[in-house]
Amino acid sequence: MLHFGALEAGGTKMVCAIGNENGQILERVSIPTETPEKTMPALIDFFKDKGLAAIGIGCFGPVDLDKNSKTYGFITSTPKLSWKNYPIVAEFEKTLGIPVGFDTDVNAAALGEAVWGCTKTVKNSIYITVGTGVGVGVIIDGKPYHGMIHPEGGHIFISRRKDDPMEQGICPYHATCLEGLASGPAIEKRWGVKGAALSDRKEVWELEAYYLGQAICTYIMTLSPERIILGGGVMHQQQLLPMVRREVQKQMCGYVQGKGMDNLDEYIVPISLNDNQGAMGCIKLAMDAWKEKGEAQ
Amino acid sequence: MLHFGALEAGGTKMVCAIGNENGQILERVSIPTETPEKTMPALIDFFKDKGLAAIGIGCFGPVDLDKNSKTYGFITSTPKLSWKNYPIVAEFEKTLGIPVGFDTDVNAAALGEAVWGCTKTVKNSIYITVGTGVGVGVIIDGKPYHGMIHPEGGHIFISRRKDDPMEQGICPYHATCLEGLASGPAIEKRWGVKGAALSDRKEVWELEAYYLGQAICTYIMTLSPERIILGGGVMHQQQLLPMVRREVQKQMCGYVQGKGMDNLDEYIVPISLNDNQGAMGCIKLAMDAWKEKGEAQ
Repeated sequence: MLHFGALEAGGTKMVCAIGNENGQILERVSIPTETPEKTMPALIDFFKDKGLAAIGIGCFGPVDLDKNSKTYGFITSTPKLSWKNYPIVAEFEKTLGIPVGFDTDVNAAALGEAVWGCTKTVKNSIYITVGTGVGVGVIIDGKPYHGMIHPEGGHIFISRRKDDPMEQGICPYHATCLEGLASGPAIEKRWGVKGAALSDRKEVWELEAYYLGQAICTYIMTLSPERIILGGGVMHQQQLLPMVRREVQKQMCGYVQGKGMDNLDEYIVPISLNDNQGAMGCIKLAMDAWKEKGEAQ
Repeated sequence: MLHFGALEAGGTKMVCAIGNENGQILERVSIPTETPEKTMPALIDFFKDKGLAAIGIGCFGPVDLDKNSKTYGFITSTPKLSWKNYPIVAEFEKTLGIPVGFDTDVNAAALGEAVWGCTKTVKNSIYITVGTGVGVGVIIDGKPYHGMIHPEGGHIFISRRKDDPMEQGICPYHATCLEGLASGPAIEKRWGVKGAALSDRKEVWELEAYYLGQAICTYIMTLSPERIILGGGVMHQQQLLPMVRREVQKQMCGYVQGKGMDNLDEYIVPISLNDNQGAMGCIKLAMDAWKEKGEAQ
């Protein structure tokens, strides 16, 4: 069976994995994200000499996903300055000499779930990660969706609840976007300690659910997904997901009816792949790149 | 050349047209929308005996677009009670005996522009109509997008501007959704007269542009369209579109960069088909239904 490489390239750490065509992860290591000069050799070291057919990268962004663009495969305007305008795809192609699949980190996670996880029975789904940032991966007709650039659903504007103790969100771009009000660092800024230490503070999670519910209503009314997955560190708070479902029900006010809306327990769901969804999605990106290369030859 | 029927089924009027495979509209009449008992015979009368290959319907909604559903082709939970749960597709199939294409009114308009108008050079686009209601048609990979039900982009939540003289929106479902704050009737409620009589009141259009700009930023961050079309009666105010572009630029704060965002004059555009985009989209729906029927036989 062929083996494929998977790189979940995050702003804090790089998760490198090897997997097979069934999405099984056979090996997995984590390397801190420093500068390209330091980090890239460590990544190459892990993947080289493993007889890989291809590698797939799910990358922090924004990234250029347009294959007709001169900067395809670049990390573009990231605030992590040493990676700004870095041609990560070309570097791997050059040093490993194998096909490289490429997409955003959240699209890769959405794809992993769509191929092997809880969204494999539907064609159109979204994957929301709520952690250091908030990101939304979008699967349409079974494939990661890009459009003009790629969705940036974590930055949609939402209405601040009037009794929010924090006057405005922490996003440097937008006063009241979802990431600025509901990411892990936003929770910590608002309450003075990390969310992990706030599990028994009901008001913390009521407010969080209010914001996530509001955003999910917007995703339903724009992207009309057949299923919605919630992942990321903040969702490790087990009490949060049922509260989010109740907020969606409440804020939608019955406007969108039928199908998923009639059974939110099956419509808004947790991750199903034990935090391997990102790496597994990268494996699928690698498989697609390998297949595309074969077809082109 | 084959002839196709087009029905733009609206809550106020039914626009019936005949067109050809080039999207040319050869004949066009408008019939008031009353009850199905009164209106349907008038529609059938127009379309029958015209030798049509198929008919396409772009319908007010919500509608059931799922071909695997028992209520496919029904108008579902509309507030126009006489049309609630009305099987409009089956009625036309039965009485005309030809294939019937079916989609939402806004998806049909988006499709007309995507096939023959200003979005024919891109794969992914949206069409926003701002009139009696606000609707968003979504084209992905050249085809109308449905997902779970269909996008209902007019009802996304937006933040009310603090100095808005209207305390809350007019939508019966949501206190501050786009339709409730920015539709034609919302403008009339807020200022006491119809928008058409307010052309020279700068504050009216600044507020309208603020809301539309806010919503468009959300569409960009969720649907990532390659081009955005603004149509509908409210957009007849020529001063509004440039103001909307400025608001998008301002509210995005440089977060999404490149491509369309670098040239908003070509990214956010007016309709290009002289208010025939809906009928022309219906012609395309009819053509697709005819082709599908042929392939099935």
